Amino acid sequence: MAEGGPVTYETALGASTPDTITLLGHDLAKDVMGNVGFGELAFWLATQRRPSPGETRVFEAVLAALADHGFTPTAIVSRLTFLSAPDSVQGALAAGLLGGGSRFLGVTEDAGRFLNAVISGTELPTDDDGWDALALETVKAQGKARIPGLGHHVHKNGDPRTARLFEIAAEEGVTGPHLKLFAAIGRVHPQALGKTLPLNGAGTCGAALADLGLPLELLRGFALLARTAGLIGQLAEELRHPVANDIFLSVDTNTRSVAPPEE
Amino acid sequence: MAEGGPVTYETALGASTPDTITLLGHDLAKDVMGNVGFGELAFWLATQRRPSPGETRVFEAVLAALADHGFTPTAIVSRLTFLSAPDSVQGALAAGLLGGGSRFLGVTEDAGRFLNAVISGTELPTDDDGWDALALETVKAQGKARIPGLGHHVHKNGDPRTARLFEIAAEEGVTGPHLKLFAAIGRVHPQALGKTLPLNGAGTCGAALADLGLPLELLRGFALLARTAGLIGQLAEELRHPVANDIFLSVDTNTRSVAPPEE
Amino acid sequence: MAEGGPVTYETALGASTPDTITLLGHDLAKDVMGNVGFGELAFWLATQRRPSPGETRVFEAVLAALADHGFTPTAIVSRLTFLSAPDSVQGALAAGLLGGGSRFLGVTEDAGRFLNAVISGTELPTDDDGWDALALETVKAQGKARIPGLGHHVHKNGDPRTARLFEIAAEEGVTGPHLKLFAAIGRVHPQALGKTLPLNGAGTCGAALADLGLPLELLRGFALLARTAGLIGQLAEELRHPVANDIFLSVDTNTRSVAPPEE
Amino acid sequence: MAEGGPVTYETALGASTPDTITLLGHDLAKDVMGNVGFGELAFWLATQRRPSPGETRVFEAVLAALADHGFTPTAIVSRLTFLSAPDSVQGALAAGLLGGGSRFLGVTEDAGRFLNAVISGTELPTDDDGWDALALETVKAQGKARIPGLGHHVHKNGDPRTARLFEIAAEEGVTGPHLKLFAAIGRVHPQALGKTLPLNGAGTCGAALADLGLPLELLRGFALLARTAGLIGQLAEELRHPVANDIFLSVDTNTRSVAPPEE
Repeated sequence: MAEGGPVTYETALGASTPDTITLLGHDLAKDVMGNVGFGELAFWLATQRRPSPGETRVFEAVLAALADHGFTPTAIVSRLTFLSAPDSVQGALAAGLLGGGSRFLGVTEDAGRFLNAVISGTELPTDDDGWDALALETVKAQGKARIPGLGHHVHKNGDPRTARLFEIAAEEGVTGPHLKLFAAIGRVHPQALGKTLPLNGAGTCGAALADLGLPLELLRGFALLARTAGLIGQLAEELRHPVANDIFLSVDTNTRSVAPPEE
Repeated sequence: MAEGGPVTYETALGASTPDTITLLGHDLAKDVMGNVGFGELAFWLATQRRPSPGETRVFEAVLAALADHGFTPTAIVSRLTFLSAPDSVQGALAAGLLGGGSRFLGVTEDAGRFLNAVISGTELPTDDDGWDALALETVKAQGKARIPGLGHHVHKNGDPRTARLFEIAAEEGVTGPHLKLFAAIGRVHPQALGKTLPLNGAGTCGAALADLGLPLELLRGFALLARTAGLIGQLAEELRHPVANDIFLSVDTNTRSVAPPEE
Repeated sequence: MAEGGPVTYETALGASTPDTITLLGHDLAKDVMGNVGFGELAFWLATQRRPSPGETRVFEAVLAALADHGFTPTAIVSRLTFLSAPDSVQGALAAGLLGGGSRFLGVTEDAGRFLNAVISGTELPTDDDGWDALALETVKAQGKARIPGLGHHVHKNGDPRTARLFEIAAEEGVTGPHLKLFAAIGRVHPQALGKTLPLNGAGTCGAALADLGLPLELLRGFALLARTAGLIGQLAEELRHPVANDIFLSVDTNTRSVAPPEE
Repeated sequence: MAEGGPVTYETALGASTPDTITLLGHDLAKDVMGNVGFGELAFWLATQRRPSPGETRVFEAVLAALADHGFTPTAIVSRLTFLSAPDSVQGALAAGLLGGGSRFLGVTEDAGRFLNAVISGTELPTDDDGWDALALETVKAQGKARIPGLGHHVHKNGDPRTARLFEIAAEEGVTGPHLKLFAAIGRVHPQALGKTLPLNGAGTCGAALADLGLPLELLRGFALLARTAGLIGQLAEELRHPVANDIFLSVDTNTRSVAPPEE
């Protein structure tokens, strides 16, 4: 708040005058519309730095990996809310996003933050052996605690998204320390844990987003952005082939009323 | 619900087995990640039809036009919610999206639906004179009622997004009946209304989305998708240069307690 | 906004100085806490008029009628969101409330508004014959359109809440024109419709709330207040006897992946 | 999930058959409506145990203490969302509740959980000296960490709600170990911290709710229930004397567009 004057609120995002509209310091109509893809723009808005084409490709691959996973709780929630309140598309989308917390969409953020905490306090290794040593130390230090991004309840033999995302990052030359540490954890954890777990896709996405320099506090936000596109897909499918009422009825018809525990 | 058997829930969106993940019938890792941009994917999820590059370019131009308009109520709401509950990024985004209703983000949907209602019941004109006649009839039929997408409280001499979006649609050869009717309304309304109003950007976006074949019931959803990217930008900026507490204090310090009306 | 000075924001609700806290112009600690029940307070906050004990009793009977209806979509949504994001109770409650739209919780508001629209434009009858005549005219004027609050998909022979709410309102002497018209609709509609439908509880609640002078624009809000208490009950039960994951699995295991319609 | 049969979902909350509606095992119309106040019902729903009149009085005093604190961020958020999307009361309420996270509404839950963690692992003192000793140990063990519920940025000389809530609990004979420990912390913390801080009202509410046996995981939920009533009051006042647009304009007119940091 400026001393002695009225408060002003600064922003480098959208702004307009009667004759111009700017976004991120550029003329929206001339320079952004028609020239900047939506993934690129989302990256740019979050970092206020225009990404390279390679960064955009990795970012969009992450968004594709997270967009829709079928009838997850968030998808069911969006469809049921749309059934109850069809007049409010914003409510159906918001309700679905509210499931994007620690359990179902949180792995991406947790993995990014976890890897970042490890590399922040240390000199970075310069070769795979060095990364393996750091990874082994990291896994051992966790003890019994889960390592975010390690393990998957369905894709026990490997999550197809993981290898693909490493490949795309390598093709674009944007593999950074988060992905390197995560890959090393994938190689060495059996030595420490006595079993082999897959690196899951959501965790790899978190490592990739962190390597792209996106804000750690908002990594979950990108999972939510991807999911917004997925939820629109769910609602569009619900309009064509409704299932929400069947889901509701499958619960309703199997409900059993019981007495409260105390009285 | 299938007769005589258990309910099954069909979806053409995300699906997985232990070894495969598919999205829209394609192998997610091999065919989608790294190959499909995020705007293209969002379109595909909503329609279950892969858009052409030209359609994608128009769609992404619309999303860019709607992504962020600075300190709108939705942006303020997201920032204030993040201030109150910094542990829940999903809550801050959801709160912001909930402002995406009839007044601030609704023009896009209203315009698309309005134009669609006009052209649905009629044989389409084949030249500009025909469109002008239909537009004039449409404007007159509205009487005193507002025409969605006509007028802007700031860009009184023309909304820069409007001309640009018509241009991009023309370049890509996807100008359809909604945009044609909307353009004609822009030409003829002064005859009926006795004053000249600009076609606003949000309305043009609605016409363009309708021409792309996106579901009318969800046009507001695309404004919300664009805005999700914008709100992440707002939260990222709030992390770097916080203003939400200043906004709160500017209200708090100017509050005046008054007596209730009746007692 | 005051001319020539800074904006001030007036409120008669909560206010505090370093040494005092007031609510609705009263000393919160001395006059409100311990003296004002929660239903009474909610009424007072909404109207800025303290209700009589009789008004409070009717209001609380309405809230009881609407608090919980078992595994409704809103209850399922709250539980599933709590499963996905257990760290955010506020998100689970908000998600549940977002289903409180036109279809599942809207009848209360729709009935109140509908009845109010009828009585607003007319001189009120003074006896049952007069109400019956007005009701018959009203039902006929609706033609094929539904009358909000008439009919129930389960309680076809009468909704137990309806008679009870009329009874309580009569006991407290707060039966007003909305309830009178609604009762008359219950008596005369078979003449016009050729079939007998029950007056449902949600509609009766709307009539009662309107008779209490609560703002019509917010009638749905009282259903949501009642439901907030119900949803806390749902989440508390979910903590003791979780079912959300079973609901999710019942969908997940019955999912069938199908090909998109076009390619 | 029952072995060998279909899943059933048990609930002791709302249930209905064509002719009956029950809530918590009681006949809703006959036994609940007209007989059970709203605060009492909310308690009952959360615990599935009917509270005594004294417990209800303390519970309703807590709800009164938390219902509305004027133009807080949550109130501003609800009003701004109602401005943007006036068609969706549920969205405006949900958006406001989403601010009920760790910072603004979290103290109640944090205090309850903190006090509970202390008393769970220990034999309870039997007199004030014993409580003082336990409190001193507790405060010292916290070191530099904040003690939830201690301190208030406005009511530096004492929060009026605190004394009143202790008084009501004492009158009703429901002062339990959480309130006793909290009171002792109020007495002894100056010895350990070298300064005197007030016990704040939100923390006292948390202690009281925990003493009432309400589920610790949902203490925040009761703050949100109280706030739902407050937010309806805010929206009702917004309908009578709108300020949301003035708040928006006060931000909008003081916005300054700046260049992004990097380009």
